[in-house]
Amino acid sequence: MKIIELKESITASNDEDARVLREELKQNHTLLINLMASPGAGKTTFLGKTIKDVGDKIKIGIIEADIDSDVDAKKLAELGVEAVQAHTDGMCHMDAGMTRKALEELNYQNNDLVFLENVGNLICPAEFDTGAGRNVMILSVPEGDDKPLKYPLMFTKSDVLIITKIDTISVFDFDFDKCEQRAKKLNPNIQIFKVSAKTGEGMEEWEKWLSAQVKQWV
Amino acid sequence: MKIIELKESITASNDEDARVLREELKQNHTLLINLMASPGAGKTTFLGKTIKDVGDKIKIGIIEADIDSDVDAKKLAELGVEAVQAHTDGMCHMDAGMTRKALEELNYQNNDLVFLENVGNLICPAEFDTGAGRNVMILSVPEGDDKPLKYPLMFTKSDVLIITKIDTISVFDFDFDKCEQRAKKLNPNIQIFKVSAKTGEGMEEWEKWLSAQVKQWV
Repeated sequence: MKIIELKESITASNDEDARVLREELKQNHTLLINLMASPGAGKTTFLGKTIKDVGDKIKIGIIEADIDSDVDAKKLAELGVEAVQAHTDGMCHMDAGMTRKALEELNYQNNDLVFLENVGNLICPAEFDTGAGRNVMILSVPEGDDKPLKYPLMFTKSDVLIITKIDTISVFDFDFDKCEQRAKKLNPNIQIFKVSAKTGEGMEEWEKWLSAQVKQWV
Repeated sequence: MKIIELKESITASNDEDARVLREELKQNHTLLINLMASPGAGKTTFLGKTIKDVGDKIKIGIIEADIDSDVDAKKLAELGVEAVQAHTDGMCHMDAGMTRKALEELNYQNNDLVFLENVGNLICPAEFDTGAGRNVMILSVPEGDDKPLKYPLMFTKSDVLIITKIDTISVFDFDFDKCEQRAKKLNPNIQIFKVSAKTGEGMEEWEKWLSAQVKQWV
């Protein structure tokens, strides 16, 4: 596991950088998935469970983007995947230039699939194209079903919404139907999976989708 | 309840604007508390419970800062307090100029205490002084005890850490001692309260602290 220190790219043309990076990734047969969520939504636990379930069939690499610490990358590296911890120098999101540097540290060409676990933030990461082939967001049950109303851009930009921690539904007021309606009003094409990384419930459907995306990309 | 549309201040001197605003608030005997947290940490529920408990003794005004929607301001206005919904035009935080505009809409001079419920974000709001007299952050049990490691600036800048949703402890792995040690390592003076706005547990201690701050400020 490596730790790298990143600074925001100087270039103003992030969209163009992202487009070029996405094209390169496609030519190298590597699908990059940008995983976004609030702090504490359960991104790392969800990734850990996904790696355990499909890591023997798909060669996975991990970029952990955080302002500080390396606890997440360490956890995932223990599962036997290659993991890079990227420190964002206080930045609240990853851009395409930062993502490129982290991918180079990872030697991404060796992987069919790379997860970029973006900085925990439901706002800023949605504004910056990282070059990923797919954007996936996590919303956890404890956060509440009203989040599409308050953070609309994140739901608009995501191809997939994963509703996590569904095993805790008994102690929270969370209306799945309302949440789905609100998300689909913003983004009619958004795919929705309901999972618990703790109990494994719902993970199979997500992993089927994931495997199909990797095949399609390669 | 009013809704206002805000844009980021043009001035580069946010620190100076914040200092001047804080001084004005002091002269007007109004304590402004900047409440920060992740999306879904329970800021609005916590504020609602606080208003119910002490709203007859302290004259409270509310600024709800959100990228979009007015669900939070509506909820709190129903409790009989004056509430302004501030839309941040996509911005991930409030600065001193935006806060001043919202305070003017609220006619803040009528209140002993104004809560600014900042945009749900554990990163960017910590970087901008709003002019508040006290910074209070919320961390909810479902988010996990490792957050001080990953979002250190927020813990450094906060005078108070409220650990919320303690009624859900049975379904989460959350080590209160570890969390407190990590927070105090970053900020030895941080005051910590453990509460459940749902059951009311721990609210009294927080409200005692709050009442003392208002008296001291006025």
